[in-house]
Amino acid sequence: MTQLTSDDRALLPFLPLVYVAWSDGELAPDELERLRALIRAHDDLDPADRARLERWLDPADPPSAAALSRLLATVRAAVSALPRAERRSLAELGLALARRGAPSGTAAALGEIEQALGVAGREASRELGPPVEPGDDTPEPAPARSFDPARLQARLDGEYRAVRDAVRLRLSEPRFLYRYGIPSAEYRAVVLEWARVLAADGVGALGLPREYGGRGDIGAFLAAFETLATHDLSLAVKFGVQFGLFAGSVLLLGTERHHRRYLRDAATLALPGCFAMTELGHGSNVRDILTEARYDVGTESFVVDTPLEAARKEWIGNAACDGRLATVFAQLIVGDERHGVHAFLVPIRDARGEPMPGVTIGDCGEKAGLNGVDNGRLWFHAVRVPRENLLNRYADVAADGSYTSPIASPSRRFFTMLGTLVGGRVSISAAALSAVKSGLAVAVRYAAVRRQFGPAGGAEVPILDYRSHQRRLLPAVATTYACDAAVKELTRRYAAGASDSGRDERDARELETFAAGLKAYVTRHAVDTLQACRECCGGQGYLLENRVAQLRADADVFTTFEGDNTVLLQLVAKSLLTEWRQQFGSFRVSSLLRHLGRRASARLTQLNPVVTRNSDTLHLRDAEVELDLLRYREERLLGSAARRLKWRMDDGADSFDAFTAVQDHLLHLAVAHVERVVLEHCHAAERTESDPAVAAVLGRMRALFALAAMERDLAWFLESGAMEPPKSRAVRAEVNALSGELRPDAVALVDGFGIPAGLLAAPIALGATA
Amino acid sequence: MTQLTSDDRALLPFLPLVYVAWSDGELAPDELERLRALIRAHDDLDPADRARLERWLDPADPPSAAALSRLLATVRAAVSALPRAERRSLAELGLALARRGAPSGTAAALGEIEQALGVAGREASRELGPPVEPGDDTPEPAPARSFDPARLQARLDGEYRAVRDAVRLRLSEPRFLYRYGIPSAEYRAVVLEWARVLAADGVGALGLPREYGGRGDIGAFLAAFETLATHDLSLAVKFGVQFGLFAGSVLLLGTERHHRRYLRDAATLALPGCFAMTELGHGSNVRDILTEARYDVGTESFVVDTPLEAARKEWIGNAACDGRLATVFAQLIVGDERHGVHAFLVPIRDARGEPMPGVTIGDCGEKAGLNGVDNGRLWFHAVRVPRENLLNRYADVAADGSYTSPIASPSRRFFTMLGTLVGGRVSISAAALSAVKSGLAVAVRYAAVRRQFGPAGGAEVPILDYRSHQRRLLPAVATTYACDAAVKELTRRYAAGASDSGRDERDARELETFAAGLKAYVTRHAVDTLQACRECCGGQGYLLENRVAQLRADADVFTTFEGDNTVLLQLVAKSLLTEWRQQFGSFRVSSLLRHLGRRASARLTQLNPVVTRNSDTLHLRDAEVELDLLRYREERLLGSAARRLKWRMDDGADSFDAFTAVQDHLLHLAVAHVERVVLEHCHAAERTESDPAVAAVLGRMRALFALAAMERDLAWFLESGAMEPPKSRAVRAEVNALSGELRPDAVALVDGFGIPAGLLAAPIALGATA
Repeated sequence: MTQLTSDDRALLPFLPLVYVAWSDGELAPDELERLRALIRAHDDLDPADRARLERWLDPADPPSAAALSRLLATVRAAVSALPRAERRSLAELGLALARRGAPSGTAAALGEIEQALGVAGREASRELGPPVEPGDDTPEPAPARSFDPARLQARLDGEYRAVRDAVRLRLSEPRFLYRYGIPSAEYRAVVLEWARVLAADGVGALGLPREYGGRGDIGAFLAAFETLATHDLSLAVKFGVQFGLFAGSVLLLGTERHHRRYLRDAATLALPGCFAMTELGHGSNVRDILTEARYDVGTESFVVDTPLEAARKEWIGNAACDGRLATVFAQLIVGDERHGVHAFLVPIRDARGEPMPGVTIGDCGEKAGLNGVDNGRLWFHAVRVPRENLLNRYADVAADGSYTSPIASPSRRFFTMLGTLVGGRVSISAAALSAVKSGLAVAVRYAAVRRQFGPAGGAEVPILDYRSHQRRLLPAVATTYACDAAVKELTRRYAAGASDSGRDERDARELETFAAGLKAYVTRHAVDTLQACRECCGGQGYLLENRVAQLRADADVFTTFEGDNTVLLQLVAKSLLTEWRQQFGSFRVSSLLRHLGRRASARLTQLNPVVTRNSDTLHLRDAEVELDLLRYREERLLGSAARRLKWRMDDGADSFDAFTAVQDHLLHLAVAHVERVVLEHCHAAERTESDPAVAAVLGRMRALFALAAMERDLAWFLESGAMEPPKSRAVRAEVNALSGELRPDAVALVDGFGIPAGLLAAPIALGATA
Repeated sequence: MTQLTSDDRALLPFLPLVYVAWSDGELAPDELERLRALIRAHDDLDPADRARLERWLDPADPPSAAALSRLLATVRAAVSALPRAERRSLAELGLALARRGAPSGTAAALGEIEQALGVAGREASRELGPPVEPGDDTPEPAPARSFDPARLQARLDGEYRAVRDAVRLRLSEPRFLYRYGIPSAEYRAVVLEWARVLAADGVGALGLPREYGGRGDIGAFLAAFETLATHDLSLAVKFGVQFGLFAGSVLLLGTERHHRRYLRDAATLALPGCFAMTELGHGSNVRDILTEARYDVGTESFVVDTPLEAARKEWIGNAACDGRLATVFAQLIVGDERHGVHAFLVPIRDARGEPMPGVTIGDCGEKAGLNGVDNGRLWFHAVRVPRENLLNRYADVAADGSYTSPIASPSRRFFTMLGTLVGGRVSISAAALSAVKSGLAVAVRYAAVRRQFGPAGGAEVPILDYRSHQRRLLPAVATTYACDAAVKELTRRYAAGASDSGRDERDARELETFAAGLKAYVTRHAVDTLQACRECCGGQGYLLENRVAQLRADADVFTTFEGDNTVLLQLVAKSLLTEWRQQFGSFRVSSLLRHLGRRASARLTQLNPVVTRNSDTLHLRDAEVELDLLRYREERLLGSAARRLKWRMDDGADSFDAFTAVQDHLLHLAVAHVERVVLEHCHAAERTESDPAVAAVLGRMRALFALAAMERDLAWFLESGAMEPPKSRAVRAEVNALSGELRPDAVALVDGFGIPAGLLAAPIALGATA
């Protein structure tokens, strides 16, 4: 067995290579033989040295563990005298050692051997440096950010900064300390108490009319709600159920008699309430719910019933413990006539909290998240409420049972009533963004300090330096900023329309489509990103104390409630089809198709090879180019969806079957639409920025959002001819490049989200450093 | 305001259209005017009828809500007399009504008006039928399945059917009733008790040598473990920690003295143990863990220390409550020499359950899932263990401190010790598949009975009839079967090698690569699919009682533990690069590249336009075609990854930096590799099936797995020239078609998973029907 002798010291420059040849453990015997042949061929080396080297590389006589260990000690002792810069590769290392006197021919031989060892050899050189001591592992200074995060936060806070700051201040109090892993009964009590504190602050009333103790400022209400959702999503949902859904339904579906009687108490939480729409058997298809409200002329009251088990009210927030009064959606029946779904105020508990006669209340039990909210079930057995309890803004029943409505069309009436739900969807989009901001703030900060693996002889590197990690987090940060711009615009329009107390029907439909699309898109983004954040924090991300996993579990159901995402996206697609039909003054599908054909081909002519192959960075980061591509996609998909529908119906398919058959197309169209809309709003926001550093980073994020969206759909761009392979590859490369460019700003970008430091996880930082 | 008169009854055939024109609520005034013009132009209609019709469509004088309501009642009364088949479209409906006597020209006018109303009009016709009563909503009979699910289950059960059945029987006992939402302390106690029952059955010992009370059958042990994981993942993990990791490490890293002393007690759970590798500061990078074990010659013992906070052992299963003895990984130091990571048996609790002197134990606390497992933290302060406690199969320290090892290379030694972890990765792949099978069984059964929305006048349809729903579930079912074939083969090879007690190094590396790749791929598939299952069950999926959400939360951390997926995929890619280098007898990267270039171009010549555009169904469902495409992708990606690495290193990049820069390529390569391997194994399994019906369904699933994998990567196939747009579109269409074809078999396919009925969620069925 080969032993290290004093003669071997002359071989010092080669020893790193020798060590790696063995320690790597990957070289096959014939590979070792080749190394020996290489050395034999180097006749400029001293023959005795050559022989000794060959002996070290004899596959028939490998060194013992102890000999290799001593060899390593020898090399390390020599290497530790070298400056770190000279330790980059095995050959450089050898050469540096050689400078202290070495056999001739060393440089050439070293180069060839290193070449021969190839990739694997270089990898293994790590151990040759002196062992990196933890204390020694001095992190390089954090990369310098290119802008002031306070300015970014000021943008996001916008006109409601004061409201947000007030809520942040509240949430930073010790009594709002983040709770986790406690029994649900306790958690529910904590959340109710939190909601009471906020109600006492007047936060719940912000959106209600002044005459009922509010500020009549829906925008302020939504800003407060959005801020709450950075903290605890159970709190946000409990708050949203009470002040958004319950009080909101009384305000929007009721009339003055209801407002006077209930709004003030709803706003202070003196009257906890429910919004009882969903049933066990009908979630998405609200029109076919089964709860019945029959008008009884004799007593001038409605009799509310749960005719069968599938009709029980399900998932009703505030129902299991706290609710006293519920807005109950039921089929209105007068005599033999069924007038469709209407909303009724039904007391469900008395002042002592006991269920009212005829009302049965159940608890939905433990959920995957949001266990601070008391979701419950309701059954009604001949529950009588006075005629005045019909929320009668859009339809009324006179004492004699005659039915009147300002909206003749029952379908339009139904969708108008349901349209009041748009506020819920606006809120959920905002809450989902808050959750994802919190999650990204934790994951990015962690990734910037958590180190694992590293280059040969160097300190371990922050995991945010890894491309795969950048790719998981930075496009998500960019998408979050882009979605924020769109949600802000949605909120602005919603608040403006709501305070006008009446928008025209086209505006209302547009707003509904906008809200439905964003809700589906943003909640999908939130759930997927929070999952990525969880995984990016490794095991630490799985501990509830570090918040990410809890946020993820809580936000999960956002994809389902306030409208299942798949259903909402179909609604968006159908609305796009309808809008085009109306916009182009003809309801003949064929003329719509001709029109679509013209528009798409007009754009297509611009798609000459110079454009479809253009892989230039400036071109790809140009907002107009990105907008053109996303608009082109949306139009093409709209045209092809319409054509496919028409073919099927011309072939005699039922419209339901036709829509089902093209469902994947419709979903694709809807996502393409939302991404185009988001890009427009985030581009608009970018153009209003006066600080050049902030504008630059907004521009990089806008481009990253747009290119990452395209990257997910590159197959379509290639198939449609909008891109050729050089361009699609360039999109991918640009996503890499932009993620890398944003990396030094990553922490500043999540600081810009404005999550109070107290709400971020402290323990995870320990996981990183220590 | 228009009122319904007895004259209007002559207009009966038109009334459905009139009703829809208003009720739809979407027609603009000019659209109504066009409808009127159309009617005016029909001079074959009676002028009085025309005038009445026009009046009904006057945008300036819309009907009242009450009038429309009466109109609807009239139409419904007439329609209810018609057989259901004649109610398909508005025009057909009108014509059927017309047969009972109608003005002349009716047919032509009806056709034109319906055409004019277009898509939207057809959609709205739903309400015209008599209201569908819930009782009336008779589901059509379930679609007939094409094969016997028991045969499929027999395939999956394979040679270990008896073991699986025994475990299933146990799990069906009342004491194993699924628990959820209970406090963690209670849950941990339940899981420990469950594990004791199984240990008493001898299940924990199945894989251990007969001389220590086992059956020496690793395959049986893994089959039992896999079956456990269909029930409760906390139980599976607790079981895996004790019998797989702890007993496994004693068996595989220790020698007879350890076996004799500990294995029997480990197998009965008389000695609960831990596997203490991960540290707060080092999870993936095990080589750089910081815990130290210094040999003290004087006392012939090792002194184990946690030198700083980052070195505390973290996430250690069984540590927080139950563990008595731990296999602790630490840096072995003898005198001045550091010998790298070795494993030591360290008692952490005494017989009364109190921490041993010098050992501090903490609790990781509440997690996002797996709260039935007591994960804990360990700190060591000068904890002394005798020299014999070194698990000395691969290295030993003599009494005088001299170090010996049969493996000279420290790197090879480290990876050999770590290689014993391969069993953990094999197990996790199997457990992840069990979890996803349970989740799919719940979601598919639910989707087959849960109804929502439906065609005009018909019953609501099962949500599994929707294409988007099929697309979320059926490719996942197919992928699960495909992965099962691969995991079965991995298990077989692992068990065979383990019982040989020694495989050659190349086999060992191959097995490690196989295990690493499958673990990453299968756990990703499991987490993503369980999330889809959760969403596909809507709100019901969010309730813990329905299991899906709990499985999802529990399986989540599978992407992180037993090797972070991103790290494992890189390991796969690196191993592919190494294997090629070795296989082609040269370690010069350039010659490897030449070789790769030759192979890829040889295949490329087969990619003539006839092939790259072939969108024929038979072609796309041909296993050889699919294998060719996946092999081609893997080879091309391997070649391009190698080239990119070489360029960067030729440019002087450090190998670490070079690997980081091409990380996205490496991950892509690794996934392409795993998908090719999975396809090969599932194709091999398909060919052994003798029952033609089962073989046919296996073939459809194999094709669906392969095409869905390609669909996720269509951009690459288009960019590389392996497909042209007609083919890539056909891939997408084929995924739709296959999902639709498998839909009638969907329930039988999940029945084939063999999940005991008692383990499936009962309440969710209630949610569906009732």
